[in-house]
Order: sequence, then structure tokens, then C-alpha cells
Amino acid sequence: MSNVRGSMIIRPWGVGIWERVQEELGGRIKDSGAQNAYFPLLIPLSYIANEADHVKGFAKEMAIVTHSRIKVEDDELQLDGKLDEPLVIRPTSETIIGTSMARWISSHRDLPMVINQWANVMRWEMRPRIFLRTAEFLWQEGHGAFASKHEAVENTIKIIEMYKQFVEGCLAVPVISGEKPESERFPGAVRTLCIEAMMQDGKALQAGTSHYLGQNFSKAANIKFQSEEGLERFAYTTSWGVSTRLIGALIMVHGDDYGLKIPPKIAPIQVVILPLIRKSTTEENLSILMTYCEELANRITNEKFDGKKISVEISRSKHRSVDTKWRWIKKGVPLILEIGNREASNKTVTVINRSEVSERPLTINLNQFLNDIEKTLSSIQENYFNQAKMNFEKNSCSNVITVPQLITQITKRGGFVQAHWNGDESIIQELSNHGISIRCIMPSMEKEKIGTCISSGQDTSQIAIFAKAY
Amino acid sequence: MSNVRGSMIIRPWGVGIWERVQEELGGRIKDSGAQNAYFPLLIPLSYIANEADHVKGFAKEMAIVTHSRIKVEDDELQLDGKLDEPLVIRPTSETIIGTSMARWISSHRDLPMVINQWANVMRWEMRPRIFLRTAEFLWQEGHGAFASKHEAVENTIKIIEMYKQFVEGCLAVPVISGEKPESERFPGAVRTLCIEAMMQDGKALQAGTSHYLGQNFSKAANIKFQSEEGLERFAYTTSWGVSTRLIGALIMVHGDDYGLKIPPKIAPIQVVILPLIRKSTTEENLSILMTYCEELANRITNEKFDGKKISVEISRSKHRSVDTKWRWIKKGVPLILEIGNREASNKTVTVINRSEVSERPLTINLNQFLNDIEKTLSSIQENYFNQAKMNFEKNSCSNVITVPQLITQITKRGGFVQAHWNGDESIIQELSNHGISIRCIMPSMEKEKIGTCISSGQDTSQIAIFAKAY
Repeated sequence: MSNVRGSMIIRPWGVGIWERVQEELGGRIKDSGAQNAYFPLLIPLSYIANEADHVKGFAKEMAIVTHSRIKVEDDELQLDGKLDEPLVIRPTSETIIGTSMARWISSHRDLPMVINQWANVMRWEMRPRIFLRTAEFLWQEGHGAFASKHEAVENTIKIIEMYKQFVEGCLAVPVISGEKPESERFPGAVRTLCIEAMMQDGKALQAGTSHYLGQNFSKAANIKFQSEEGLERFAYTTSWGVSTRLIGALIMVHGDDYGLKIPPKIAPIQVVILPLIRKSTTEENLSILMTYCEELANRITNEKFDGKKISVEISRSKHRSVDTKWRWIKKGVPLILEIGNREASNKTVTVINRSEVSERPLTINLNQFLNDIEKTLSSIQENYFNQAKMNFEKNSCSNVITVPQLITQITKRGGFVQAHWNGDESIIQELSNHGISIRCIMPSMEKEKIGTCISSGQDTSQIAIFAKAY
Repeated sequence: MSNVRGSMIIRPWGVGIWERVQEELGGRIKDSGAQNAYFPLLIPLSYIANEADHVKGFAKEMAIVTHSRIKVEDDELQLDGKLDEPLVIRPTSETIIGTSMARWISSHRDLPMVINQWANVMRWEMRPRIFLRTAEFLWQEGHGAFASKHEAVENTIKIIEMYKQFVEGCLAVPVISGEKPESERFPGAVRTLCIEAMMQDGKALQAGTSHYLGQNFSKAANIKFQSEEGLERFAYTTSWGVSTRLIGALIMVHGDDYGLKIPPKIAPIQVVILPLIRKSTTEENLSILMTYCEELANRITNEKFDGKKISVEISRSKHRSVDTKWRWIKKGVPLILEIGNREASNKTVTVINRSEVSERPLTINLNQFLNDIEKTLSSIQENYFNQAKMNFEKNSCSNVITVPQLITQITKRGGFVQAHWNGDESIIQELSNHGISIRCIMPSMEKEKIGTCISSGQDTSQIAIFAKAY
């Protein structure tokens, strides 16, 4: 956290992870048909006023700019240049992107139009927590406009599936995907799809959302088009996003007593080469050592993992090797190679594998290491996912049938509870008193199993996930 | 421009160019030893107050946040949650990064530390102009801390050379690099190096700066370290940046009557494949056409330019082909391939080369086109640079010897004037009255040529560049 309340400083390793998210997820977003654009940080207050629902829903805590100037008077800084209309730092760019889309779209030939933005946004948070709830955070927000309801709904579903595949495949974080009940929906949304991850303590973390907005937003923002038949129609819109809270999920799902564990597919650096230099190391030995490290780095870069060159860094830290080693373990880099003069002369590497860090590091032949490196990184990736999946399953339960049982289960043991629920909202307040919410309704399966609704007692095939959440 | 005064919307093609800048320049910045980090958008006013020089220098126009809440009263939005201390939207992150560095650095072993940030910043502009002067803009700011003056100066120079190579090599914009006279220096800087580009109208545009700050900022921010000898020392710091104004430079240097011309090395898309679909095109012909376009795209992607895969897009626009073609010409994509059924049956391509757009497009054999594509893109890149360089030289003059001659030359003919100048500042006000400034002092050459200072009449070997500037 920084000195500004609720704002965070993201240090290089965190930014490195976010840049990998931008590369990996960003590529998939482009492949889905979206184009990146950039919209102003400041939004006129009147835009927010236009979206009354919007305001009542979630956006009351906002940073508001009222002045444009600082002057020095009597050696003190004073505010000057009061604005005619206050400006709000974007809590989301829904309104400003909607306004632009209304200008850019006139014919069905302009549709679909899907715009994505990577940006900082700001929501004043009452209980800030690094990476999970910070006043300012980084995110991507996608906004789609379509000629038909069918296409818009399809986009909403396609995106939540893209998020699920990315979060499970790259971040090795298992999630459950489903639909929010009405009470948890994004204000103005007709349907809100989400992915929910489970932290090691059994609490849920919403990791991504995808909204189908029907014509609610297009009517508010006046996004109209002339249909093929020459009729004026409002577009069907969607919006969807994930944020730096994904980094929070990574930390809380994979961390252990030694620190973070970053899955290889999202690690900014996959292999760190750590030359073991001592005060007693002679110039000659130092030169041999560093030459070997360079050779090692070159040969590793020639190997591939997940279809890309393996990223490797030779540590140039001037701190003691042992301190540097522990710093890298704490950051969660997948592999650390300790290289002393013994390794350099024998053409071997001593491998610290972050997924088995408590075991004694093995010294192995360089060629063998290179031969196996793709497999090694794959198995770390798998291992992290499997561990998280095990925790997820261990903390999931589906055998409660009454509300008191549900509350006891979650209060005492945490985790996710799966139960039949037909949408009856009378249960929600009581759960909320215990800090429990309905995380999502599961997508309906082909073979529905009828059960008794935990709230109304009626028969239903609908199943919901209940949990405490961050 | 958007509806918020002085703020711009960057549409997908502009963001695409900026993303290419981030990739190309970002890679060089990392190679130079900097690490990316991210710091808060909002800075406490007291940080700004600590930097009194700073404030007097340039940062009077700033966006100031005073409230954290909006409430609805009598159906009207009202400001609420007045902050104890106003917060400023970063005009630069100098102070907040300095504060963090002071915390992160304790020993000479922590140095050098070079942090780079890609971010949005805000300076209220009185005369906004898209991409050149906007209230909000995107930039990168690098901040380095070093144990010795020598290393810090070396970093300052290395970075300005990196900028020059990038701007000339990728953007095809010739620049002159030099040092700002004291009157034009960044407040608090000991030395300010810069690159200056010339627009087609002969005016200068500062395209990047690199500052050596001595110990001025480290003393203000308390960036201290324990030296190898165990003594407490202040670090020597640098800072440097380029912004989205580079996109402005691109537009103004290469544009012609048809629109933009984006050099292939920085174009988000290098080749657009435009299927010529008519209302009369049969299903069967459409299928043959699209199959050929896909084949074409695959084969082009397998070719390389500048060491990377060539980027290609098949136009899926539903607008008329001729409109789509002109839209791409206006955007300045280097190559457009018009593909009709004739091309599909003959395995040919009809090539619109943006650098010779007024000429009749040639239809050539596909294999020949692929064989030459790297050469074709290279020659477009070279062609843009050479045209800009010719304009640069045509509008440069070095034969004026008096101030009135200099003023007449620049006022009547524009362009850059090179003249001997020994640093005597008495000339500056008069030049400024004519909108002329000293853009930079040229780096001293090995073989100095003594001449007469245009201001003082004394002998000097120092040469300066004079021009009007954006």
C-alpha cells in the first residue's frame, strides 16, 4: 500500500505478472473480435447523473475533481480554477464508451462493435485490501454492441468461457462459472455471468464478470442503428471485465509459508540463474562462472514452454547469494538454478523447484535439465492446479438441506456449499447476516436432478453455490 | 477529442500504434536495465508542496480531487466526503516514485535502481491539440538512482540515444539530439537532453527528454544509501520520458493528402487483405474468394519483416469495398491487397502500396509478392524516412549570422536554424516575442569549428538550433 489511503504501489514483479495477463488474456480478447481503444480518465458528473440506476447501484464512492489549478499565495499552495462541472475519475467507462459508440454506430454494417480498454479505474473503498479492494486498480473492460439479442448473449457466454479457460489454464486457479441471482447482478444488467474462485481459507473471490445488458444501456446512451430492413433499432450490449484482483487470487490460492508460487504460464520470469559468487571467488573463476551462466541462459532461451521461448534471467544482484535465493523463492519464480564453480566445471545445474522447495535441490547434468525443462515446467503448472483443485473439492459440500445446516457448515468449516435453490429471495437477508451470499447459480445440465429448494421447500432443478466472499 | 475539454479518445488504430510503441520501445527500456512498476494516480498535495521548484516550474495546472463521494439529495447529485487533504492527479510521478525509492534503497548494493512506469498523466492544457497537447495523455516515465554521478550521466545519455534510435528507426522520424539551454531545462534538472523532430510545416516538436538531476531530487526525496566505504550518500538520479505525442509526430511528419502514412515497423497491421465482394458475387465465388484470402493471410504470416512475423488482417467490414479501401488508405496501413475473383483464380494479388498510392495498383503473381514482401516493406520504411529527412534538410539553414536574419529566416521560411551561440541569454526574450526558441545545443564534435556567437558576438564553438515549436 502507498501513502495515499487505499492506493497501491505495484512493484516490478506484480507489474510483470499483470503484463503477462495483458499478453495472454489480451491476445484472447483480440481473437474474440474486440479492438482496444482508450477513453478519458475523467467523466462529467452529468454522464453519471444520466445513469441514475447506475449511481444508486454501486458508484457512490468516487473520486471527484473540482479544481484545475494550484496557486501559491503567501507561500502556501491553494486551490484555484474551480470547474463549472465537477469531473469524476472513471469507476468504469460504461457511460463514456456508450456515448462514443452512439456516435460511431449508424448502420447494421457497423455491428458488431466490440471495444476493449485496459485502464486504471477508481472506487473509493471503505476497507481496502491489497490487490483485492483498492481505491485505484487496473483492469480491462470490454463493451460490445450487437444487432441481435442472440449475438449479444452469445458474446456474454463466450467471454465468461474465455475467462474461465484463462484463469484455470494460465493462472492454475480452478473456478466455478455460473450466473448471479438478481440480487447480486450488476445494476442495469439483464444477466450477469461470473467466475468464482476459492481461496485457501475457503472464501470465494469473484474473479471475472460478463454482463448481458439487453437494450437498457443502449437506450440510456442512445446506441441506435439502421437495420437491414431500414428500421431504426437499439443495439443489444454487453460488458465484461477482470482486474488486478486476479493477482490477489494468484497469491491467495497458491501461496505457502515460503511466499508466492507463480504458475510458469504466467510467471514474468520462468527460470532465474543465480551465480554463487563469494568474496573468495577469484577473477578467473568469476569469469568462468559468468560465461557458463550466459551459455546456460542462451540454451534455456532456445527451449520452449507453452509454445513460447522460456524466459530466463541471470541474477545480477549484489546482495549475498543466499538472500537473493530466498527473495526469488518468496516471489515464486518456478525454477532457480544455483550455479557455483562446481556446476560450471561439471556442466551441471543445481535446481530449486518452487513446487518442492522444502526438498533438497538436485544437481543434474545440463543436457538432461534442458531435455526435461518443458516437462518440468508443465508439471509445476499442473501441480499448482491440482493442489488448488484438491483444496477446492475438499472445501465443497453438497449435503446440507436446511438453512441452519448451511449456515453452520459455512460458518464452521468455510468453503462452498452447493444446494438446490429455486430463486426464492426470502433466504438472502438471513444469510447476509452471517456474511454468506449466493455466489452463482450453476448452468443447467442436460440431466437435471430435481431437489428441494433450501429456501422455499419447493421442487427445483436449479442449483446455487453459497459461500462467504472477499 | 472527447466531450471532456482537452481530453482525447484514442481510437483502435491509435491505440494499436501506441501498443506497438510499448512493445518496441518497452523492450529497449527493459534491455537498458529498467524494471516496470506502477504507482498511484493520486498524489497528496503535500508531496507537491515539498517540491516548491517543481510547482513554480510547470505544474500549476493540475486536476485536483477534493471529494470522495456522491450522494443523491432531492433527486440531485451532490458532492460529499470532503477530503482532509486534496489529492492531485499525477502530472508526473517524480515525487511518489522518489518517496518509494527512498524506502527501497539502503545500500550501494541496491543501486543502480531504474524504475519505469507506463501510465496516464494529466496537465490541464490551455490550448489543447490532439496527440500534442491534451489534458490527459499516456506516457512512460523512467526514474533512475545511481551511486555515482558518472553512472547517472551515462544513463541520461544512453536513454536519449535509445530514444533517437527508436524514433528514427521505427517511426522513421529524423530527429536532432542535443541539450536544452538552462532556460528550457526541466525544473530541478542539472542537464536536460532532448530529441527534436521537424514537422512538415518546419516547426519543431520535442519528441523525448532525458534529465540528469544530480542530487537535487534525491535530497528532496531523501534517497540515501550506504556507500562501499560505509558512508551515507545521496544518490544521483535521472528521469526520462516519451508520450503519446509521438503519435502526433508520426501523423504530422508522414501525413499526406490521403491521410496518415504509418511506417511498417510501427504499424499495428502491415498488410490488409480486402476481399472484393459485390452484391452479384455468388455463394460459390464468395467461398473461393474467402478461401484464397485465408490462404494468403497464412502465407503472409509465415513471412518475416524486421525479425518478426508480418501482421496481416482480412477485412471483414460489411461496408462497400471501395469505402473500406479508402478508410485503410486514410489510416496509412502500408500494404492493401485487393482480392477479387480474378486474383483468386489466377493466384495473384493487386497491391496498393501506401507510399505510392497515387499510382495505379499492380497485379502480380502471389509467389513473387511473397518473395519480395520483406523488401517491399523495408523500402516503404526507408522511403518514409528519406522523405522526412529531405524535408528536414530542405528546411534547415546554417547561414544566418545576425539575430534579425535569424528571425526573418524562421518567420518567413520556417524550419530549423543552426547558429553559433555561446549560451548568452540576452537574446532569448526577443526570440520568444517572435515565437522562436532555442530547441537544443548540439553535442560538441571532435573537430570544433569556432564561429561568432549570434547573441554576444564572441567566439564560440557551441552551436544551437533555433525554431518555432509546437
